[in-house]
Amino acid sequence: MHAPPIERLIEQFERLPGIGRKTAERLAFHILNAPHDQAAEMADAIVQAKEQIHFCAVCRNLTDQPVCDICSDAKRDGAIICVVETPKDVAAMERMHEYKGSYHVLHGSLSPMDGVGPDELTIGALLQRVQRSAPSEVIMATNPNIQGEATAMYLCRLLKPLGLKVTRIAHGVPVGGDLEYADEVTLMRAMEGRREM
Amino acid sequence: MHAPPIERLIEQFERLPGIGRKTAERLAFHILNAPHDQAAEMADAIVQAKEQIHFCAVCRNLTDQPVCDICSDAKRDGAIICVVETPKDVAAMERMHEYKGSYHVLHGSLSPMDGVGPDELTIGALLQRVQRSAPSEVIMATNPNIQGEATAMYLCRLLKPLGLKVTRIAHGVPVGGDLEYADEVTLMRAMEGRREM
Repeated sequence: MHAPPIERLIEQFERLPGIGRKTAERLAFHILNAPHDQAAEMADAIVQAKEQIHFCAVCRNLTDQPVCDICSDAKRDGAIICVVETPKDVAAMERMHEYKGSYHVLHGSLSPMDGVGPDELTIGALLQRVQRSAPSEVIMATNPNIQGEATAMYLCRLLKPLGLKVTRIAHGVPVGGDLEYADEVTLMRAMEGRREM
Repeated sequence: MHAPPIERLIEQFERLPGIGRKTAERLAFHILNAPHDQAAEMADAIVQAKEQIHFCAVCRNLTDQPVCDICSDAKRDGAIICVVETPKDVAAMERMHEYKGSYHVLHGSLSPMDGVGPDELTIGALLQRVQRSAPSEVIMATNPNIQGEATAMYLCRLLKPLGLKVTRIAHGVPVGGDLEYADEVTLMRAMEGRREM
């Protein structure tokens, strides 16, 4: 019904998570109505982000530097490693302005049903990192849902035999929810109440 | 907090209508996690749509042809012109698979408060078109809200003196709503019940 380039643009928006047909149409027509500069900037931002962003050599968070801003910050305590599922979780933790340690980003959680095993996550990199740096504490801040808990338990069983202190954030974060949507106070409670596993 | 290319991508998504900060983050990280091909396709779809899409020489709908598919379709009745506000409204009308006339897309509605007067719409093109082709009927299918009604009234006052039959779609479409979100049956009722202005 739409001209092919419009249809193609709508389909591209529809591939994004949480974007249905109606919303995709609305976004596509917004682009078509927007000044050429704005559309070009958007296309460029997509290309540039994909080109410039890669994993931090230390924590595997997304960065445009060889080592991310947090890992290269001398004021941060690299001896404490907070293990999270996604870069969005790092952003959520940073928003509370309380945590001064470092992170490790798994890029997912164990989910055998979806074919996500240990090799699909950055668990090997985490093991190498803790064996090299012998951190004083590894905090499991995976999501408080089934996959997140299973991932925390799995990592705990790998890390404890290495003589490491492994803790889990408290269930201040609502069970079944996503860490990403927790507010700063809830996250702070969760961090304060963390207990050894 | 995010690396600059990520922040820039998030900001670009935030400029889209109805997309807040959280959703923009979600979309940006989806792009960053997606295969390079998919991101490149999306950027390309934006650029190509902006490059290839322009106004149909007849009805002012968006098209990648000199004249759009509807205006160049010999099976459609060019002597009936359905005046709508946006290309999305054309798509909504076409979804009912009942209307076999042509369209005229105004690209907005009269809204003096927002600085949208007759010159900001494609009203001049509509007048030239009806003077050239003398259509048998001009159907006002602008939105059933204040601006849409005012636009229909304004156009009626311009077109009736030219001896044209001007009709308004019936208020089957919910008053205060957007034509774009009307279902096929409601649109059909609205078309069937159209009356002369």
